Amino acid sequence: MSLTSSSSIVESTPALELASLLDPVCNEMRLVEKWLESNLIDDSPFVASLLSQIFRAGGKRIRPGLVLLSSRATSPGCGELASRHIVLAVLTELIHTASLIHDDVIDKASLRRGQETVNRKWNDRLAVLVGDLLFAQASICLARLMNPVIVGIYGQVLGDLCSGEIKQMNHQYVCKVDWEAYLHKSICKTASLFAAGCHSGPILNGANDQLIAAMKDYGTNLGICFQIIDDLLDVTGTSTELGKAAGSDLVHGVVTAPAMFVLERQDEPARRLAELIKSRTVSHPDGIAEALAIIRENGGVEATVRLSRDYAQRSLDALCILPSSPFKESLASIVDYLLMRTH
Amino acid sequence: MSLTSSSSIVESTPALELASLLDPVCNEMRLVEKWLESNLIDDSPFVASLLSQIFRAGGKRIRPGLVLLSSRATSPGCGELASRHIVLAVLTELIHTASLIHDDVIDKASLRRGQETVNRKWNDRLAVLVGDLLFAQASICLARLMNPVIVGIYGQVLGDLCSGEIKQMNHQYVCKVDWEAYLHKSICKTASLFAAGCHSGPILNGANDQLIAAMKDYGTNLGICFQIIDDLLDVTGTSTELGKAAGSDLVHGVVTAPAMFVLERQDEPARRLAELIKSRTVSHPDGIAEALAIIRENGGVEATVRLSRDYAQRSLDALCILPSSPFKESLASIVDYLLMRTH
Repeated sequence: MSLTSSSSIVESTPALELASLLDPVCNEMRLVEKWLESNLIDDSPFVASLLSQIFRAGGKRIRPGLVLLSSRATSPGCGELASRHIVLAVLTELIHTASLIHDDVIDKASLRRGQETVNRKWNDRLAVLVGDLLFAQASICLARLMNPVIVGIYGQVLGDLCSGEIKQMNHQYVCKVDWEAYLHKSICKTASLFAAGCHSGPILNGANDQLIAAMKDYGTNLGICFQIIDDLLDVTGTSTELGKAAGSDLVHGVVTAPAMFVLERQDEPARRLAELIKSRTVSHPDGIAEALAIIRENGGVEATVRLSRDYAQRSLDALCILPSSPFKESLASIVDYLLMRTH
Repeated sequence: MSLTSSSSIVESTPALELASLLDPVCNEMRLVEKWLESNLIDDSPFVASLLSQIFRAGGKRIRPGLVLLSSRATSPGCGELASRHIVLAVLTELIHTASLIHDDVIDKASLRRGQETVNRKWNDRLAVLVGDLLFAQASICLARLMNPVIVGIYGQVLGDLCSGEIKQMNHQYVCKVDWEAYLHKSICKTASLFAAGCHSGPILNGANDQLIAAMKDYGTNLGICFQIIDDLLDVTGTSTELGKAAGSDLVHGVVTAPAMFVLERQDEPARRLAELIKSRTVSHPDGIAEALAIIRENGGVEATVRLSRDYAQRSLDALCILPSSPFKESLASIVDYLLMRTH
């Protein structure tokens, strides 16, 4: 199944399909999918149909996949999972989807996963409510786990998601390079939920503290890597590849790693890029095109790829403690899968 | 403290102040207030100041008051409360405030509690996030209670709040009178959180099932009564009294009890009212003035007052099971306090 070892990152990876990486937990993934498509509690046919449309629209399901792989990789003898692991995977995807729906309201986005967003197809009002409803469904799932430690972990994730967005909102069009703040925002926006998903399964399994810490470490670094690559693709990808408008971070004045690497050079291209951002020229088609060209031509892309590889390696290193299994192999291959997106 | 017995509703009540009804739990209320003003976790000074402004803007604090009174009225010997009861009161107010902030985005409201709404003072984006953040803070509080039954109860409340709003959104400008749907919506929007607040304290106290059921019954009926009176005041109140625009439900096509009592008469005023609603003429100043006049002149107000009294009585009846105490007296007086708002 896995195309690489867990201790190194191959430079040239054959095409990896996420679905095949999730093969070792395909039965469990089917249960998650079934739950998302039909098990959500709501007595209104309109709402039920809306939720079903949202989940049928797809999504990579990387977070529930990580929950299931981490759970099996750390269960006694890598044995079968209990239904509470399925619940954990479901609630992780519910929180992710809810936060995307609210993000799209916040960003006035019209495309997501190649489809019209809820706010675009219906309106902002319904999008706020549907997001709230999914957060509520996640809370109900959380309650079913009957585990106060995990309730605490996910409560913190919910807080982090909001703090991350508010921080980002308050730093729009700011060109001062602050890597610590960037890292913190990436943890809040993305890595916090990845980490929760990766170490809550081991907690449910009653794994030892060292194993739990390793899986949290894996999830945190993988999440940071994921966010860095997401920021990179916003600069290098096309609208078709992304399923949403390209360059949309910078259009909204959100300055991420690729731009930061150029800005910190403090040379002429850096000054021009800062000027385009501060004057909000990036919000216009010509301005964003020029800004993206400056980033691409001045090493912003390559430096960001290197940064993502650093976190990928940390993520792989954390897996060393795990016993060999197809689940461990998939966890390692998911790191390669993410890096492959940078090619 | 109390101005009435718990078994009857006085027709003419001297002015009641909610603050004085909460006197038996004033020490606990101070702890709740302190928590709301300063204890919310956020590392951003901007967010901390925003949250502090929101809670300093006031609000009746009826929900945390009910939590504390219900908790003390059902604790062994009506003794002092543990810190988890304070946490329960705090999280109940957090959920309420979060849902108000999101409702204001949904309704594009500009005034709340006599002050500018978050969406008006800042913008919709921040209002969505701040609401999410408060829901998240509530989840963190919930986790601290370490009680999966209560996590389940509040998870259901969160779902009910969203379902209630979505149902309301889908029934705008609909003139078919459906009392069951109205009751269900009132439970989802309001009574579900009242009921959770009133019976979770007894659960934490380890009260017997009969007592827990009675307090849930009290909270549910009180919440329905509260919602009916809220719907009534929208028709009878002035903007100054309400701290928000009067008639705003009907302006947005939300048909509630006062209008429903007229609509079900199926006479000429009923037909005219239905016409004003269906044609959306109610959304214009002249239209809403005519609609409100029809409701006031055709018994809509009196019938709604009677309906609110029915639920008030059910709420009082539920209290019979409680031992005598100042806390029980306050719970009974809160019913009178609500009814007093109808005068």
